[in-house]
Amino acid sequence: MTIGTELLLGFTIDTNAAELGAALSSVGVRVVRRTTISDRADEIRDAVSQALARTGAVLTTGGLGPTSDDITKNIVAQLFGAELEYDPAIWDALRERFRKLGREPAERNRSQAEVPHGATVLANRWGTAPGLWLEGTPGLAILLPGVPAEMRGLLRHEVVPRLAARGAGQPIISATLRTTGIAESSLADRVAELEPDLAPLSLAYLPGADGVDLRVTAWGLPPEEASRRLSEALALLRERAGDHAYGTDGEDLAAVTLQAAREGGIRLAVAESCTGGLVGGRLTAVPGSSDTFLGGVIAYDNSVKRDLLGVSGQLLSRYGAVSEPVARAMAEGACVRTGAEAAVSVTGIAGPAGGSEEKPVGTVWLATAVRGDVRASERHFLGDRSEIRHRAAQAGLFMLLRHLRYYLSR
Amino acid sequence: MTIGTELLLGFTIDTNAAELGAALSSVGVRVVRRTTISDRADEIRDAVSQALARTGAVLTTGGLGPTSDDITKNIVAQLFGAELEYDPAIWDALRERFRKLGREPAERNRSQAEVPHGATVLANRWGTAPGLWLEGTPGLAILLPGVPAEMRGLLRHEVVPRLAARGAGQPIISATLRTTGIAESSLADRVAELEPDLAPLSLAYLPGADGVDLRVTAWGLPPEEASRRLSEALALLRERAGDHAYGTDGEDLAAVTLQAAREGGIRLAVAESCTGGLVGGRLTAVPGSSDTFLGGVIAYDNSVKRDLLGVSGQLLSRYGAVSEPVARAMAEGACVRTGAEAAVSVTGIAGPAGGSEEKPVGTVWLATAVRGDVRASERHFLGDRSEIRHRAAQAGLFMLLRHLRYYLSR
Repeated sequence: MTIGTELLLGFTIDTNAAELGAALSSVGVRVVRRTTISDRADEIRDAVSQALARTGAVLTTGGLGPTSDDITKNIVAQLFGAELEYDPAIWDALRERFRKLGREPAERNRSQAEVPHGATVLANRWGTAPGLWLEGTPGLAILLPGVPAEMRGLLRHEVVPRLAARGAGQPIISATLRTTGIAESSLADRVAELEPDLAPLSLAYLPGADGVDLRVTAWGLPPEEASRRLSEALALLRERAGDHAYGTDGEDLAAVTLQAAREGGIRLAVAESCTGGLVGGRLTAVPGSSDTFLGGVIAYDNSVKRDLLGVSGQLLSRYGAVSEPVARAMAEGACVRTGAEAAVSVTGIAGPAGGSEEKPVGTVWLATAVRGDVRASERHFLGDRSEIRHRAAQAGLFMLLRHLRYYLSR
Repeated sequence: MTIGTELLLGFTIDTNAAELGAALSSVGVRVVRRTTISDRADEIRDAVSQALARTGAVLTTGGLGPTSDDITKNIVAQLFGAELEYDPAIWDALRERFRKLGREPAERNRSQAEVPHGATVLANRWGTAPGLWLEGTPGLAILLPGVPAEMRGLLRHEVVPRLAARGAGQPIISATLRTTGIAESSLADRVAELEPDLAPLSLAYLPGADGVDLRVTAWGLPPEEASRRLSEALALLRERAGDHAYGTDGEDLAAVTLQAAREGGIRLAVAESCTGGLVGGRLTAVPGSSDTFLGGVIAYDNSVKRDLLGVSGQLLSRYGAVSEPVARAMAEGACVRTGAEAAVSVTGIAGPAGGSEEKPVGTVWLATAVRGDVRASERHFLGDRSEIRHRAAQAGLFMLLRHLRYYLSR
């Protein structure tokens, strides 16, 4: 149950829901209904009672903060007939948390230290509102904060282990093969005839801005059998997807690319124009990237392409910033200026303005340099500014990975 | 009501829900509850009946496709006591659509041409499953497909105009004040006493990684009064939030910062270590940023700080990369090397490794340079690697904005 008026009004996209569904499925808890309600007391009371009557167990997110619209705890405590009690340990933890930030908790934070009698406190290391685990005559109620990072932390570290320990049932297990640079329909042409062989697993195509994920799911099989069948399925799918397959499950293309470079003793750099730092952002999002990624240049203005990457003014004026010679010079310049052995460059027109008949919005030149061997590729991406930039960053990383693999396989 | 087993399993993030909430609010329809259920017949029957009993009107998405798990139409038709009738016009439109793609519809698509007796068909120009509008003794049921582009097209072009024509009510209108660099509880201390003055508007605190948004909402007031009251409320809130308030509604801090620089004739650069391009990514996400943002250096490795930003090796070895002198030298170096009049630098320890007792994970030095005036600030961010990086990028932009405003106000 998601509690928050703003979610009904459509101001916020509910990302918690998917995370909760996946985590609960992983320990065999079947979610039969998900409900979003406003933060009105009667609505919360009504919906939580109905949920408990339906299955005997409800998990809520939201309404645990320090402000006046945070009433989830009070309502659920009433339903369980539990008085609120002040817990000095929570208050101390809260003060310590504020102290580290050089601040004092406000008086209103004190309500966050109140706990329904008999409830288990789920310590929140990611924020101020602890989670709560209540069991009683109405059933089981798990109360989590709505802020995604806090919800996630409590879910993974406090809720899932407790549910797993209860042995709720056979888990619903999935495995995902990640592909990029190939359209969903082309992928389906390669993969569809495999579907009968995959049974009893189900296959789903999940197209996204980064590419198409192929997900196979085992429904309620014994874990060992599920795991074996999923591995076999992934192997079959990988064979069909060819080198468009770059990873499995949550693996990011940036992490795979860093690992390929690391194995070849190659250090990486970037030279970004239209992506403005997105490729660097992707690479540095990977923990431990500092041993392989040196840095690079955000060459948004032509003067920066010239002064910091050494792209000649003549190339820029003759071919324009979005061109093969400039993309090549940017990638080479990134290697020369940073001392990296390999680099990727991106220069394009992300829109909404700046397009022309010859170079419409979405035109992007990519180049990769690996130990002096430079390759370039012209691409045309669809979508709005944000999609074009993200697709360009993904395509740049994929081109770099392929170039690294080619170099390393020789 | 969202119908689809995959949504309960958490494989898909439900973006339709927010879109529906916003569109319905805009024509004065108040959504009191949102429910997600599996595509089982008994679940659908149960949940749709409950929703109709609660408010007399339900909008469903999903379960209108051509496959065996698409049963929404059949169940809802039964609830309304309406027989399904074959509609040759829908079948012709479907064949025409397939013909354009060079294909023939499959026999299974024929079920999509069946319509409950008395229902209004909402033509789907974005896909194959038409929407349906049923009215009868149980109330009003609007059935839309679940594919986001199809749902959106039908919602905007078929559903919203019909609801608006009914004069469902006064629209629900909101306005948001965006703040950063202040904790939710501290903000509440400043703002809470205003709440009675804001009535009949409601106030919500929306904390996120970028800061806390304050949203005021007018529920069913005449539009002119709503608009006036919202403006007054924003002014009151802005006064209390002080310079922590940086914008309203969907405004991004990067866009506000670019605008401040633009007004002062100042061009911007970045020097990023632990954020690795996130600040540049934020700035270049703003359309039209190229007149003000020149670019910068992703100085992840110390060699890049030295070679491309001119940070002296002595400073680096004496104080370490995460230090005030290095942050200052990075910001100054970004100005010198790119020719920008202002720059922000970020150097810190994003973790999970690399922390020490003296400089724990989350320690970040920020510096801003505006026409030669350099300021630095040490910050300690909580969270995982991703949160620390995003918070550091946001804090860097905010520091730059404040510095620009101070400079421009002199």
